[in-house]
Amino acid sequence: MLQQNIHIVEKSDPKTVFPNSKKIYVSDLRVPVREVTLENSPETPMTTTEVNPPVYVYDTSGPYTDSENQIDFSKGIERIREKWIDDRSDTVLFKPEGKNNKTPVSFDVQFPVSHETRKAKKECVVTQMHYAKAGIVTPEMEFIAIRENCLRDQYINNVKKLCTERSAKLLLSQHAGQSFGAAIPERVTPEFVRQQVAEGKAVIPANINHPESEPMIIGRNFLCKVNSNIGNSALSSGISEEVEKMVWSILWGADTVMDLSTGKNISETREWIIRNSPVPIGTVPLYQALEKVNGKVEDLSWDVFKETLLEQAEQGVDYFTIHAGLLSELIPYAAERLTGIVSRGGSIIAKWMIEKEKENFIYTHFDEILEICRDYDITLSLGDGLRPGCIQDANDKAQLGELHVLGRLCKQAWDKDVQIMIEGPGHVPLQLIKENMDEELTHCFEAPFYTLGPLVEDIAPGYDHITSAIGGAQIAWRGTAMLCYVTPKEHLGLPAKKDVREGIVAFKLAAHCADLAKGIPGAQFRDNAMSKARFEFRWEDQFNLALDPMKAHSYHDETLPKQSMKKAHFCSMCGPNFCSMKLSADILHMKRKMNFSNL
Amino acid sequence: MLQQNIHIVEKSDPKTVFPNSKKIYVSDLRVPVREVTLENSPETPMTTTEVNPPVYVYDTSGPYTDSENQIDFSKGIERIREKWIDDRSDTVLFKPEGKNNKTPVSFDVQFPVSHETRKAKKECVVTQMHYAKAGIVTPEMEFIAIRENCLRDQYINNVKKLCTERSAKLLLSQHAGQSFGAAIPERVTPEFVRQQVAEGKAVIPANINHPESEPMIIGRNFLCKVNSNIGNSALSSGISEEVEKMVWSILWGADTVMDLSTGKNISETREWIIRNSPVPIGTVPLYQALEKVNGKVEDLSWDVFKETLLEQAEQGVDYFTIHAGLLSELIPYAAERLTGIVSRGGSIIAKWMIEKEKENFIYTHFDEILEICRDYDITLSLGDGLRPGCIQDANDKAQLGELHVLGRLCKQAWDKDVQIMIEGPGHVPLQLIKENMDEELTHCFEAPFYTLGPLVEDIAPGYDHITSAIGGAQIAWRGTAMLCYVTPKEHLGLPAKKDVREGIVAFKLAAHCADLAKGIPGAQFRDNAMSKARFEFRWEDQFNLALDPMKAHSYHDETLPKQSMKKAHFCSMCGPNFCSMKLSADILHMKRKMNFSNL
Repeated sequence: MLQQNIHIVEKSDPKTVFPNSKKIYVSDLRVPVREVTLENSPETPMTTTEVNPPVYVYDTSGPYTDSENQIDFSKGIERIREKWIDDRSDTVLFKPEGKNNKTPVSFDVQFPVSHETRKAKKECVVTQMHYAKAGIVTPEMEFIAIRENCLRDQYINNVKKLCTERSAKLLLSQHAGQSFGAAIPERVTPEFVRQQVAEGKAVIPANINHPESEPMIIGRNFLCKVNSNIGNSALSSGISEEVEKMVWSILWGADTVMDLSTGKNISETREWIIRNSPVPIGTVPLYQALEKVNGKVEDLSWDVFKETLLEQAEQGVDYFTIHAGLLSELIPYAAERLTGIVSRGGSIIAKWMIEKEKENFIYTHFDEILEICRDYDITLSLGDGLRPGCIQDANDKAQLGELHVLGRLCKQAWDKDVQIMIEGPGHVPLQLIKENMDEELTHCFEAPFYTLGPLVEDIAPGYDHITSAIGGAQIAWRGTAMLCYVTPKEHLGLPAKKDVREGIVAFKLAAHCADLAKGIPGAQFRDNAMSKARFEFRWEDQFNLALDPMKAHSYHDETLPKQSMKKAHFCSMCGPNFCSMKLSADILHMKRKMNFSNL
Repeated sequence: MLQQNIHIVEKSDPKTVFPNSKKIYVSDLRVPVREVTLENSPETPMTTTEVNPPVYVYDTSGPYTDSENQIDFSKGIERIREKWIDDRSDTVLFKPEGKNNKTPVSFDVQFPVSHETRKAKKECVVTQMHYAKAGIVTPEMEFIAIRENCLRDQYINNVKKLCTERSAKLLLSQHAGQSFGAAIPERVTPEFVRQQVAEGKAVIPANINHPESEPMIIGRNFLCKVNSNIGNSALSSGISEEVEKMVWSILWGADTVMDLSTGKNISETREWIIRNSPVPIGTVPLYQALEKVNGKVEDLSWDVFKETLLEQAEQGVDYFTIHAGLLSELIPYAAERLTGIVSRGGSIIAKWMIEKEKENFIYTHFDEILEICRDYDITLSLGDGLRPGCIQDANDKAQLGELHVLGRLCKQAWDKDVQIMIEGPGHVPLQLIKENMDEELTHCFEAPFYTLGPLVEDIAPGYDHITSAIGGAQIAWRGTAMLCYVTPKEHLGLPAKKDVREGIVAFKLAAHCADLAKGIPGAQFRDNAMSKARFEFRWEDQFNLALDPMKAHSYHDETLPKQSMKKAHFCSMCGPNFCSMKLSADILHMKRKMNFSNL
């Protein structure tokens, strides 16, 4: 059994990865939230005893961190949206057409349970945008509204009830944001979610054949999201590693996962991933289409592509990256570049166009693609096949020309109630990020922007997760709705699990910087709770509130491994006499005691 | 012998750390530059054969990467500035007064060679600012002008001579910068250096007792610099480790090093470091002063502090961080904070003021400190004792109040021809960085700003090098002249060598982002050369042009260890059929061959 090769369960034990955390579910919709329990503030000459109420954290990790849950990868996870979809009565169960039977499949790679497939009833449109435009608030929208607020009221109430007035004021404070025209609400309501989806300013990637997914939203007026790329290549990795990487990704906070497999068993790998994924799954269908024609670009055709789209739609892929905007007229601009076309999909399509002397078939068949998306609620992520692959090529005619085409396609999709994201760069120096974001907002009418980084310089391979987190924080602050992570392996090789973790945490923190900078209400609660824990030397709480408790804990252990040091009023950085936090607490104490009025 | 414990020489062999690199020296002043030799572009159907001229890189690593040089740590490195200082005839050799003889020193920690000490002749001022104001261009200024240009003309000439017209155009292109009022020259001349120093907009930290240092400049109209903090604490590390960390720091690109030791043998540790350091060394003299009074804050006094300043001045410390702006009237604002005072120096001074009910002695004796600085050319780095320790405390009255005091002290120092830097935060969310930088430029009259990060969120301990590289890139773009690195161990423990490397590279890339964003002429050459190497699959060149070739190489090896793969036209990320770089080269080739005119 494949499952035996998936070594994730033990490692994802919440007690190990997120100590003092508990998964809780809110409302009948069972919205998952992670509750981080904190220690009381100890009574010392310097600090008042007080209860520190739990902090609630947005939780992407699905059933894998639910200690009540027995994981069986060969069965797949709970289909939480199934009833909601059924209740809408606008879909039918049917026998799949698009299934690719060309590749013989051996028993041990096939997913053992065959699920029923559904599509829209004739004349029905089943997209969240369709419902939104019709004024319908779906359970998905309600779920999202609760999730985005993440028990904010409960936290505020707890703090007000349990903490001193001084602590409450500090814990609940937040700096004003600068949001560059975003319309961030004081509170996310189901109705606000509906409006944003209806206007195309946010998307809910939620294929009706992926009922396992926990609804989430991507839009600049919501928390900034992070995507993790996984997938094998011809040179590396198998199904179990990829399922492991998916679970690993969401454990660290990936909001969506793209399966970019280009190696063996593409279809089976994806089935295992989707059936076990609580987050939306994206793909680049062109990769599988190319595998179907044995890697020969010239044998690609609309028919093969369409068949692939249908297969993936039926399987439950939540969003497709398609390179519909790369028109033949833009290729000469790419030829002027230092690094040409660096998007895999983009270069495949460009090569096809040149060989065939024809226009991009994804562009010419765009309307048919929209029909498929309407039937399954697939969100389109319009790929930037001409994204710059180096600083020198940033914001050139090729890139911006394609972006303008994407804007036109965006309108076309909205007319058919299809949800749209716009993909963005790539390599862009800091000073050109504003232009990029502004172009997108203007020409793509505020459709959610989904960027890869951007990387703000080219000379640090091995550290490109940092380079791109710098650009990512910047562009997310200016309005990018989802950041695609970059790992330390970028430009060098296929990321392994350790690289996935580094990449996701780097991007979670970049997205969080942007949330703080935009002023998302409540975004600063966790930072303030962390800072209070620091000031009070509650080391365990510092670890447990961190994005990566395991790493924080192990770094502390490197120099002060003894358990008693987890209560110490200093660390190895400064030692006891030079700890500014300790001195500072001493000062506060002295000041109170002495009532030193002339200070 | 201590030296036997210093295991750096082998590891710093340029052939290991920087393959295909050679240290060269420019002009009679022997300005060090690292020359990275590149392979020729191979002739393939896709690429033209051409010579790729070497790329010249700013080199901070001193004699440790000079294969001609025999390193003997017990003798110290060459005293390259000795003759220049002598030639000015404004200093005298003398017997040190400030030497701290209280601590008995064992033979094996004492630096074996006793160097002569010098100070300014009576009535003479020996600061670079003094010379600059008098219209004198010192050898230090000439050296810096060459260093900042880093053989730019030679590279341009080589590229024009050796490359095709297309390559030359691309390799020499650079995006326009956005410099927020900085006055970045097209070319750094000795006269420009002089002007900037005379106006206080840049500093050259260069104690006359540190003739081993290679001159460098800190100012927002020059390349952004990076400082590395080293130093032991009472809990960790000895002399050999700290010398090793210094050499390790400059190997990865640290432009200055601060020795923040607070543990054993402070004085001897510093002597070993200075005698072997080609970069300016900074300290926080208050730490040693506190050690002298056995950690009892109440026993601190101006006399002990002055004695410490003199000892360090005579030893050759290039810049002092002193917390002169933390006035007693500002302490009540800090008491309102979530994390109080987080600067070690700041908290010591604050505690002293409260206990003594007196004003900060560093402030009240500021004029006497300036006299010492004039005698040795010590640059003052005015510490931000009230920098915010968390997002919540950013840009508050305590922080900005202190910054305004620093501005007044800055003027006072300039009147005495003492060079000044202003230290900055700390923890500041992205949207408040602009205000911080603008306040500094306005109230401190464009004196070089030297910031610690800033960290733009609080919840990622273990990843704080990334969090602060995000803030660092942002503030450096807006005008910060030097970034103090933060390692992954920040908030958790004393950094080890691996953490120092991670921290420095993260900050070198952040500083480089800022240089690109400000539009420093020539800053993009290395990026373009890297991008061309990428497009042509010159893997070894990609590694060798990287900030950290060893890491780039080892990451590539993780999936494709065979040497033959260093010539492969793909990597394990995508495999051969899906390599966009390869496809893109194919497209260019087809386009040329077919002259496909309608595209």
